[in-house]
Amino acid sequence: MLSIEKYQQEFVFFLKSFQIKEEPKGLYKPIEYILNLGGKRLRPVLTLMTTDIFGGNYKEALNAALSVEVFHNFSLVHDDIMDDAPLRRGKETVHEKWDINTGILSGDAMLIMAYQLFENYQANVFQSLAKLFSKTALEVCEGQQYDVDFETRNDVAITEYLKMIEYKTSVLVAAAMKMGAIVAGASKEDQNYIYEFGRNLGIAFQLQDDYLDAFGNPETFGKQVGGDIIENKKTYLYLKAIEFSSGKEQEHLKHLYNIETNKTDEKVFAVKEIFKSTGAAKATQQAVEAYTNKAFLVLENLNISEENKLLLKEFGTSLMSRNV
Amino acid sequence: MLSIEKYQQEFVFFLKSFQIKEEPKGLYKPIEYILNLGGKRLRPVLTLMTTDIFGGNYKEALNAALSVEVFHNFSLVHDDIMDDAPLRRGKETVHEKWDINTGILSGDAMLIMAYQLFENYQANVFQSLAKLFSKTALEVCEGQQYDVDFETRNDVAITEYLKMIEYKTSVLVAAAMKMGAIVAGASKEDQNYIYEFGRNLGIAFQLQDDYLDAFGNPETFGKQVGGDIIENKKTYLYLKAIEFSSGKEQEHLKHLYNIETNKTDEKVFAVKEIFKSTGAAKATQQAVEAYTNKAFLVLENLNISEENKLLLKEFGTSLMSRNV
Repeated sequence: MLSIEKYQQEFVFFLKSFQIKEEPKGLYKPIEYILNLGGKRLRPVLTLMTTDIFGGNYKEALNAALSVEVFHNFSLVHDDIMDDAPLRRGKETVHEKWDINTGILSGDAMLIMAYQLFENYQANVFQSLAKLFSKTALEVCEGQQYDVDFETRNDVAITEYLKMIEYKTSVLVAAAMKMGAIVAGASKEDQNYIYEFGRNLGIAFQLQDDYLDAFGNPETFGKQVGGDIIENKKTYLYLKAIEFSSGKEQEHLKHLYNIETNKTDEKVFAVKEIFKSTGAAKATQQAVEAYTNKAFLVLENLNISEENKLLLKEFGTSLMSRNV
Repeated sequence: MLSIEKYQQEFVFFLKSFQIKEEPKGLYKPIEYILNLGGKRLRPVLTLMTTDIFGGNYKEALNAALSVEVFHNFSLVHDDIMDDAPLRRGKETVHEKWDINTGILSGDAMLIMAYQLFENYQANVFQSLAKLFSKTALEVCEGQQYDVDFETRNDVAITEYLKMIEYKTSVLVAAAMKMGAIVAGASKEDQNYIYEFGRNLGIAFQLQDDYLDAFGNPETFGKQVGGDIIENKKTYLYLKAIEFSSGKEQEHLKHLYNIETNKTDEKVFAVKEIFKSTGAAKATQQAVEAYTNKAFLVLENLNISEENKLLLKEFGTSLMSRNV
């Protein structure tokens, strides 16, 4: 087993060696650009780590790990068009640097390239990886659609919200790990358990993201603290605050989410106060903990060494205690 | 062997029985819509027919045929966004009926669904189909990119144009046939020969399309005759006319392709005269014939009955003598 940093390095080294075609430039330059914007490379690292944990060799998982990362970046390129986002990791988004058509077409090519990376595996492994990939990719599309739908709905239930973040975020974390298990030749049971581990951890991760977006440390949090509040995003915090409030307090929150204001600091402060006073902030932290514990419980079933279980636990704990 | 019409019917019957998921509606309704807009279903018919020609059972090729059709429609949805096209087969395009974001996301889901349709085959066939599909799909993206690039270029060579239409159109025709051969368990040699047949026929088909767009019978041609001329599209006809002309005539043609005019009838008439007088019209017809003959020559190498070779020839001839 390597350290997380070492897996990251190995992955980035492999990514740099990956030959992206040159022509037509209008198609492939944007792909090179987005893949080299950086990021934590969390998903591919999970693939590599999981292969080692199941007694495989992480080097054999590099193509699968890259596939996950290429897919993740494909979804960012298309989502950024849909969200009209100007920046990604502090740099111009693809459709901003080039144009929307380029974003669409280069994104399409990336989705195809993600499948091509599985061609380095033999037929059975190829089919297992591609099947899991297709199922996951389609769920990510569904998650994105639910996210879009929720923007214009005022009756989103917590269970619906959880399903949305599961599809939009956590199934890819889960699939990244399961791919590592497939490459290592782990049993079907172990493949499914590690998927469950990743799925629960992914949900915890996204809920933590919701929490940090409001309550993270502005000095270390990568994005603008309060960004979700400014955009009136109905996150777990908001939905819980609505659930836990009534009368004037609830009206006040709804009002704050309906007004156009440029006094964003005041708005963020007021909303955060309600998140705290209603108990929504606390409930979100508890949900993060609950999903993390659910993930840890799944670990018990895995047919791997106690040492490796501990490693996965430490990884999960470090993810959840992050403030970035 | 069935008749073309019978293959069409069988395919459409299979398509109707294909269960598209219901939720989220915003994602899946547009997919149902575009898949049921109709069309000649040329590509899936070729897949089914090829399976029978190589001694397989076309029923086993239905999933592969549907994959080709789903991919083709995916590319139409995304291309229509890029081309800002309001109509497709006389009906509203997806991004027009819904919005651009819907077009992007539903298109993405279709590309994934096209891969999923291969899951009905066992691992080796799955891998062969998916590999061919990925290669083809990426070439289609490249072809689209070249098409976009050519719009703003004045120095497109005939060889570049041929490569563009090969990638944008003919590789999918070729792959549709090769998939039929793969499902039938044809030899690698036969798979490659039928691919070459389809590739050449596809180029002939697209050149014929260029020709008919200008010289087709307005009564039977589906689209507006002269549409390419009105849009100043640098088709084979145009590029040949430039090649074959000089001095005033060439200047006149370039001028007609540079002016904004609402006297489109006059423009179309004038350009067609130049296409004829320069010999570009004739050269285009000859190129259609040359690529068709190239396709027929490839047939000689195929390890199938003379009867089936004749069928493929008849099919090719009927495609090239079409006026729609």
